This record gives sequence, structure tokens and C-alpha cells, in this order.
Amino acid sequence: MSDFEDALKRKIDSKTKPVGSLGRIEALAMRTARLQRKLDPEMERACLVIFAGDHGIADEGVSAYPAEVTRQMVLNFAGGGAAANVFARAGDLDLHVVNAGVRGGSFDLPQITEQSLGSGTVSFLKAPAMSAPQVVDALERGISIGSAGDYHAMAFGEMGIGNTASASMLVHRLTKAPLKDVVGRGTGLNSAGLLNKVEILEKASARVSGTLSPTAALSEFGGFEIAMMAGAMIGAAQAKRMVLVDGFIASTAAMIAGQIEPSCRDAMIFCTLSTEPGHRLVLDAVGAKPLLDLGLRLGEGTGAALAWPLLRSAVRMLNEMASFEEAGVSGKSDLS
Amino acid sequence: MSDFEDALKRKIDSKTKPVGSLGRIEALAMRTARLQRKLDPEMERACLVIFAGDHGIADEGVSAYPAEVTRQMVLNFAGGGAAANVFARAGDLDLHVVNAGVRGGSFDLPQITEQSLGSGTVSFLKAPAMSAPQVVDALERGISIGSAGDYHAMAFGEMGIGNTASASMLVHRLTKAPLKDVVGRGTGLNSAGLLNKVEILEKASARVSGTLSPTAALSEFGGFEIAMMAGAMIGAAQAKRMVLVDGFIASTAAMIAGQIEPSCRDAMIFCTLSTEPGHRLVLDAVGAKPLLDLGLRLGEGTGAALAWPLLRSAVRMLNEMASFEEAGVSGKSDLS
Repeated sequence: MSDFEDALKRKIDSKTKPVGSLGRIEALAMRTARLQRKLDPEMERACLVIFAGDHGIADEGVSAYPAEVTRQMVLNFAGGGAAANVFARAGDLDLHVVNAGVRGGSFDLPQITEQSLGSGTVSFLKAPAMSAPQVVDALERGISIGSAGDYHAMAFGEMGIGNTASASMLVHRLTKAPLKDVVGRGTGLNSAGLLNKVEILEKASARVSGTLSPTAALSEFGGFEIAMMAGAMIGAAQAKRMVLVDGFIASTAAMIAGQIEPSCRDAMIFCTLSTEPGHRLVLDAVGAKPLLDLGLRLGEGTGAALAWPLLRSAVRMLNEMASFEEAGVSGKSDLS
Repeated sequence: MSDFEDALKRKIDSKTKPVGSLGRIEALAMRTARLQRKLDPEMERACLVIFAGDHGIADEGVSAYPAEVTRQMVLNFAGGGAAANVFARAGDLDLHVVNAGVRGGSFDLPQITEQSLGSGTVSFLKAPAMSAPQVVDALERGISIGSAGDYHAMAFGEMGIGNTASASMLVHRLTKAPLKDVVGRGTGLNSAGLLNKVEILEKASARVSGTLSPTAALSEFGGFEIAMMAGAMIGAAQAKRMVLVDGFIASTAAMIAGQIEPSCRDAMIFCTLSTEPGHRLVLDAVGAKPLLDLGLRLGEGTGAALAWPLLRSAVRMLNEMASFEEAGVSGKSDLS
């Protein structure tokens, strides 16, 4: 054990509680200390970044909602009325909304960061969703966004009608899991809609043969918001920020970020277990057990925003709790 | 469905999200609305009440820590240095500490509410832990505490060396589960200590035959802090406050509160799954699935304090989120 690890273990085990009795809260505190390489890490300022983008595949009837809802929901974020707004306010996270490629052009609103790569992706049923240079562009813009501002943690979420279809394709091709095990109802398809979604995605997958690299998979089947979010996770991790990963789509971006830049896995906290079936496959692929299991399937970073107070509390525990010595509390007897 | 239920369902289903996509967060919001009988319930002010008491059984060697730690930890709460203090500050809960029967007399500190029923309980290995009038007294004092102040939610926790032994006995006798399935390592017994704890509790159980009522069980095997907490849960529920129930000990008190006054179950949120094996048995007995599963086993109300932001966020969602109509967002298409 290094001197740092030894000092960290001594610090946490001197706190007035049985050793290990705060379970995963202790693990969060220790991971933060390691990332910042500090025995008294800081974890007070966080933001939620929502990446929004449209998907050509949405026109093939893979979603319960029409594609215009992406743009309408971005306006809802700008107006403060979405679930993500409520949870960000409640948890004291700043909120940034990024137009990564929503149909209909610039929003021209101060609340929206314009980084559009186009008016939605191409339908990947017939052609690659985006070009290879667009993938590089998305990742680079994301890396800048992930390291912008003055934050200790960044939570990431998304909005994009059709993006469970895109994420399902990415998971299918990058983990080799069969599409029927990955694909779910998204925003709320009925059973016929689900069968139709699987069928369309099977056709799309047949268009491209062979093993795909993460960036090739993004080009073939990705979304602008997914690619930019993957970049932002890399950027945030490189800036030594904890990365709060939301549900199925965000976890897919995180898996890809980790394949591109393995070191960023150390910064990632998988916050929530989505009811979307593919999410478990992604979590298995990255070896993560999510913090919360509340039956969420909304996205927008809602699960990440809800998990943020746990991370802040964990680090405050490391910094603010008294030691046995400081508090004059007796240690364990010889029965243990 | 009543008019109220119908209006509540319409309100939550009009929010800009797929129906049901916030899972248990929606359920928390709806439970609060029902308890307060309001479509726009309030959930902003909460406190954590920690009940502290000593246990005669601690002298029989059932805990990894010496009995004096109860008093030392109460002083740690008063000084602001315990995990419960940190999490209460982080979550913006008021903190009240109640001396329900700690050895060594009054604390004479403004931070400690004196409600002591004695200098710890009698060792239940040889005699009832407390008298029947003490049980009544504890419940009545608890009911007053549970309805004091001006709160929308009350979180309850405990401190008492030996109280996993007491709770294990209560669970064993009230659920009929075998002691070997209930008893755990508490604050951290080793395997020999665990075997010894089971053996001592088997002996104690053999002292009393027959089926016990909840109050008789409290008299035989309870703790002052457990009985007073059960009363406080009843009082808080009667005052239409949500009750945030912590881990194994607090859940045992909640089970007993629900047996004494079944209507208070509607107010209870079981916040955390303890690693203490008896906790699952209690949760099964009350039919609850805890909100958090973070490997906690500290008590002090730490799990309840960590869960509080979820409840507050849930109710804010009901009150602050825009509807589809307000935000101009399209509804589902016919694919769903």
C-alpha cells in the first residue's frame, strides 16, 4: 500500500464509527480522495450538463414520442420546467444545456450552449449516422465542455427522441449482446412498437459487418449528444472531476469514453439503474453497480442529479467527522 | 378511484415526462400528497431525531464496543462530530438528540433533550428489560416528540451499545424468525463474538415463553430508545408527517409502531437496507423495499438523513415540474 493509501485508510478508519459501517458512502469518499490525490478532497460544486440531439432513426418509428419533442424539451429545460431542472435546483447543481445537434437550428437563448453538429443525425437504417470527422468533432467539443467551469463533479444527462435506439445499437455492437436482450420500450412503446423497434434495429445492424471500434460504432449508429457526452466524460475525468453518470444512454456514453480513454473509469460513478433492459448489460461491461435503484427511465440526468447529494455527503463525512481521539470515544473491545 | 386520487393521477401524469418514468420518486410524491391530502403537498422542513439509551445486555458481552460508548457518542452528537451530524447538515435537516435512558445521568447540555427513563435497561438475560409502565411512558414521551416542532418529515435514528441484541430479540419474538437468522455482527463482532451473542440471546429468549404482544416484547427485551422511537413514529404519523425510517433498529421500532397503530404505516419510508441480517426479515414483515442499498450499518439515522433529499426532490417534482400543456410539449404518438 502506498503512503497515500495508508494515510487515507488511517484517516477514514479513525472516524467515530465502526470500520466500514458507512459502506458505499466510504467508498465514494475514498475514490474522490484518490482522484484529487488529497486526504481532504473538495466536493462542493457540481453541475448537470444535458446534451440534446436529434436522431434520423426517430423517423423510422422507433419511439413513442414524435421527434419534435427533443426541441420542445430543450425549451422546457430553458424555461426551468423539466424534472432535471427541479432536481438540479433541489440538489444545488448548476444546469447547462448543450445543443449538440437538435433539428431546427440554433435556439438563440442564453440558457442554451450552441455546439450543434447538424440538424440531427442521418437515419442509420440506410447510412452511417454521422461522418468520422463529426465523431472527432463531437468528442473534442465534449472534452472542452467537460473541463469548463470550476466544478468538483459533473453530472451528465441527455435528451434526444430516438436515442435509446441509438444506444441499443452501440451496446449491441460493442458488447456483442443480442439486440433482443438490449432493446427496451424507451419512453414507452407498447409491445407491438417494441417488436417493430427490434426489427428495424436488426435491419440497421445487418447493414454493417465486422467488429467496430468505439469511434466507428459512434459514426455508424451514434448520436451527436452521445458522442459529445462521451467526450465530456473524458474531459471531466482528465480535469480530476468526479463524473456522475445517469441511466442507459449516459452509461453507454461512459462505456465508450472508457474504451477510448481507460483512465477515465476511475472518475465515474454510475448513479442509477434504469428499467431499460440494456442498462444492465452496459453496467456489467464496465463492472459497475449503480448507487440508486429507483425504477427511473427518464434520462435528462435526473438519476445523476438525485445521486449528487450522496457524493457531497460522503466527502463531507471524510472532512468533517470527528476521530475517536478528537471525540474521546472508546475503541473496540477484544470481542471483535 | 376517489376524486382526490383521480386528480392526483392526472396531475402527475400531465408532467413533461413519460408516465411513470420517475419510478419510486413518483411514488414518494404521491404518498406525501395522500398523507397531507393535498395536490400540492409541502416537503421542505425535516429533522433527524436520535434516541439514545443504554442496555443491560451490553454487560453480557454482546457488542464489539464497551457500553460507555453510548454516552461518549451522545457527546459527539452534541459536539457536531458524528456521521449523523455531517449528513444532517449536508441535507439541511435539524438534529435533535434525546437521552431516552443513557447511563450516567443527565447531560445538562442544551443540545440534548432529557427524557431519560433510567440508567439503561436491566439485562434481559435474567429479568425484563423494563417495566410495563416504563413502556407506556416511553411510548407517550415518544408520541409528544414525534409531533413537536414544525416539520413535514421526521427522520429517526438511534444510539445504544447493545441495541442490535435488543432489536434481534424483538424481531425474533415478534416475527418468529429463528435467532440464528436474525442476529448479526452489530458494530463489528468477530465470528466467535457472533456465536456468543446468539448463545446469550437464545438463553434470554428461553426465559420467556409464549407469544408476546408488541408492548410485552418491549418490556421483556426492548430498549428505552427503541420504545420511545416507536412512540415518536406514531406521533409523527398522526401529525401527518412522513416518517423516514433508518436501518435495522429503527425498522424494528417501526414494525412495532405499526403493530400498535396500523395507520402509521402509510407515513413510513424505509430508507436503507442494513447489512445486519435481521433487517431483511423486518422489511419483509412490514412489506417494504428500502430506498437505498448502500451497505450501511451505522445507525444514528444516517441512512434516513441520506434519503431525505430524495423525498424533498420528489415532492418538488410534483409542485414545480411543468405540464405538457404549460411547456408546449407534444404527447405520445400512436406507437405506444
